[in-house]
Amino acid sequence: MAEKQFVKEVADINENFAQWYTDVVLKTELVDYGPVKGTMVIRPYGYAIWENIQKDMDARFKATGSQNAYFPLLIPMSFFTKEAEHVEGFAPEVAVVTHAGGAKLEEPLAIRPTSETVIGTMYSKWIQSYRDLPVIMNQWCNVMRWEKTTRPFLRTSEFLWQEGHTVHATEEEAMEETIKMLNVYRDFMEETLAMPVFCGRKTEKEKFAGAVATFGLEAMMLDGKSLQSGTSHYLGQNFSKAFDIKFLDKDGVQKYGYTTSWGTSTRMIGAVIMSHGDQRGLVLPPKVAPIQVIIVPIAVHKGGVIEKAKELETALLSAGIRAQTDTRDMSPGWKFNEWEMKGVPVRIEIGPRDIENNQVMIMRRDTLEKQALSIDGLANALTELLDTVQKDMLVKARARRDAKIVEADSLEGILAGVEGKNFVKAGWCGCRECEDKVKETAQATARVMCDEEGVPEKCAICGKPAKHKVIFARAY
Amino acid sequence: MAEKQFVKEVADINENFAQWYTDVVLKTELVDYGPVKGTMVIRPYGYAIWENIQKDMDARFKATGSQNAYFPLLIPMSFFTKEAEHVEGFAPEVAVVTHAGGAKLEEPLAIRPTSETVIGTMYSKWIQSYRDLPVIMNQWCNVMRWEKTTRPFLRTSEFLWQEGHTVHATEEEAMEETIKMLNVYRDFMEETLAMPVFCGRKTEKEKFAGAVATFGLEAMMLDGKSLQSGTSHYLGQNFSKAFDIKFLDKDGVQKYGYTTSWGTSTRMIGAVIMSHGDQRGLVLPPKVAPIQVIIVPIAVHKGGVIEKAKELETALLSAGIRAQTDTRDMSPGWKFNEWEMKGVPVRIEIGPRDIENNQVMIMRRDTLEKQALSIDGLANALTELLDTVQKDMLVKARARRDAKIVEADSLEGILAGVEGKNFVKAGWCGCRECEDKVKETAQATARVMCDEEGVPEKCAICGKPAKHKVIFARAY
Repeated sequence: MAEKQFVKEVADINENFAQWYTDVVLKTELVDYGPVKGTMVIRPYGYAIWENIQKDMDARFKATGSQNAYFPLLIPMSFFTKEAEHVEGFAPEVAVVTHAGGAKLEEPLAIRPTSETVIGTMYSKWIQSYRDLPVIMNQWCNVMRWEKTTRPFLRTSEFLWQEGHTVHATEEEAMEETIKMLNVYRDFMEETLAMPVFCGRKTEKEKFAGAVATFGLEAMMLDGKSLQSGTSHYLGQNFSKAFDIKFLDKDGVQKYGYTTSWGTSTRMIGAVIMSHGDQRGLVLPPKVAPIQVIIVPIAVHKGGVIEKAKELETALLSAGIRAQTDTRDMSPGWKFNEWEMKGVPVRIEIGPRDIENNQVMIMRRDTLEKQALSIDGLANALTELLDTVQKDMLVKARARRDAKIVEADSLEGILAGVEGKNFVKAGWCGCRECEDKVKETAQATARVMCDEEGVPEKCAICGKPAKHKVIFARAY
Repeated sequence: MAEKQFVKEVADINENFAQWYTDVVLKTELVDYGPVKGTMVIRPYGYAIWENIQKDMDARFKATGSQNAYFPLLIPMSFFTKEAEHVEGFAPEVAVVTHAGGAKLEEPLAIRPTSETVIGTMYSKWIQSYRDLPVIMNQWCNVMRWEKTTRPFLRTSEFLWQEGHTVHATEEEAMEETIKMLNVYRDFMEETLAMPVFCGRKTEKEKFAGAVATFGLEAMMLDGKSLQSGTSHYLGQNFSKAFDIKFLDKDGVQKYGYTTSWGTSTRMIGAVIMSHGDQRGLVLPPKVAPIQVIIVPIAVHKGGVIEKAKELETALLSAGIRAQTDTRDMSPGWKFNEWEMKGVPVRIEIGPRDIENNQVMIMRRDTLEKQALSIDGLANALTELLDTVQKDMLVKARARRDAKIVEADSLEGILAGVEGKNFVKAGWCGCRECEDKVKETAQATARVMCDEEGVPEKCAICGKPAKHKVIFARAY
């Protein structure tokens, strides 16, 4: 009876993936709905994942020479109008402050949906000479985009993210930075989130409002849909001209800089959930798991069991493993379910018999395999095991994804492909009409271009000569 | 000539402290003014201080069992009205979102000036049983309070901070948490910011809007004024009743929880500047200095000098010292000025003669003392030196402060005391009229009460029996 109330059931992952997702994120206490429609509260278990993501990414950014800074939340509405495409893209989503300090403001202020405009304004003031370049800054902050349909982590009116903003003296350097950060993101997503991604240029239709070129990272979720997990934009001189970011070059000539921006967000937490989860709940990669090893004592009332469990916990913590002992007065079976749902990578069971035999039982969350391990050298063995789990999760995710990529040479083929929950590679003539037709017919969009794989002869939609090879997919 | 343009003069620290502050924060590139009046941009050198503060504090919070989370930026205006004192205190400062997504909102939304109301709403949902208590969460975020007069770090419409929010089953536990966090703050400020603080309870007039009791940390700036550097609030059941935070206790009775909240902000950066600076600029405590050791090669064009400097830098970095080599093609004198203004705790000078003698010249920023150190074992010697600087800075700040504390037993005495740039300790009857009189006459406020030192017989203002001993000071 008492047990019953703790059973937290989730929807069938194959039959109703959307409901499975909602059930899992709420029941594992990653997140909750905020009081204002479309907002989320990131609860401690979810925020700890974000902290692990931040720490890892931040070190990668700093290794490229990037420095963190903080720019204001509120941006004068007039700033948005300075870059024509940018305002068109973001104005409909902006939240506007009209009153403050008990009075109406002279000019309404936008809550940043992204910070190109305010950062561009500051860069214009700070940058004078080629000696000031490159400028490579990043900020970790909240942004707001008013959305009609929202889902925790995936699309919320407010979310947390990082946005990098750089200025360079030449087009070449700026493009190099754009691709460098795209690769930093890819390495992070593969190595830390165990999530394979397709990196490539976006079509004109799908690019960032105001960019010359946008490069995206697309990951395949368990339902075959794509989730854009990060973007890196080459902005050319669009923003430097709009915000007057000029420098005196070595040759004595005033020139406009070339800018880039790149961003990833708490959306990545949704990506991790939908890349690795299963019917039991979350499966977290060790590198971002808040708890890497959960120790469940069996027969907690027997003398010495909790003491031995705590002793192991201390040894694991000293070895840099995020370990925790579940000493609550509940049945082991209940605890197993709970920690499996919470996606803890490794479970240790330790009971009186195990202690006698100087061993523990281990279960890997990713494979559900159990094995006995000696207590001697346990920390080392687990460090290795966590490393193995991390790598195996990427291999598994990649194999799953690669088995769901098909090629198509007709609109019907694209439709059949996405209906079968695949990513579909196809030739494309490059025209907007064909792209729109795919959207109408198959509810799929061009995720990224992958011309480097070799462009097919014909456009799969209109049959004219193809200019690009595109990955089409339904997307979040 | 080329040198001249780099000379960055600052106002006289004794004659015009306010201008000195503004000059220093702008010229060292800690901060800049944002485009919207009253906002600031925290530049990389300033933000790096904040990152060091965050990392240190965050570890201290987590050691007390606190977990980080993230709550929404926007709060329905109606939430504020639920706690009467709270709305009275914060409504005049709130920035309000009235439009979003291209339409007028049904209910206006406040940008959080503090998050008791939205967090209370979520706690009410999450907390059911005594088993769920205590709840101890913290968030690092931005907040907004529309201010008329602003100064970078000290008072800006938007600032960064952390706010802890806890719920407990009993009054006693909640009060214990309030004092525990006050002490965590004090230890941090003394050990990490090298800044002595007076901790004590605030008067009714000065307490947080909605609190039963507020405890503050007050630091004396170089001009004798007080800067409130953090606060810890015991909220009793005020917010739990307003937001229905109830739990089923062990005895089967539904009870309201007891809550606390505690916060510190980017204001602390201002406190560090005004606690330790001098005519040359910043003097940063090693624990928060973005660069702890700056290596300035002398005669950069001589073979081997830069190489040797870089070699030292690598050795220091490996020892965990934040070291950097200034390889720019500028005169050493110019560099000395620049890094002194930027407050780098230790400077290393290394030239051809030093290399021959297997030594370097060291200068301590806090004392301006120079000494020669052997290159052998330099990393160890500098680790020790940085530790010494850190400790000496606290000793010096404490001695300076303690010399500027006077006692008074009359209103004239209080006035004379604060005119002399002192903190003034005096007896107080506890009535608002006397407190207001001090404000009118001496432009000073009650900073904290220090009854534990022994309450004087009479109120210095009205002569009636004193109930408290108070520290009066002019304040930021």
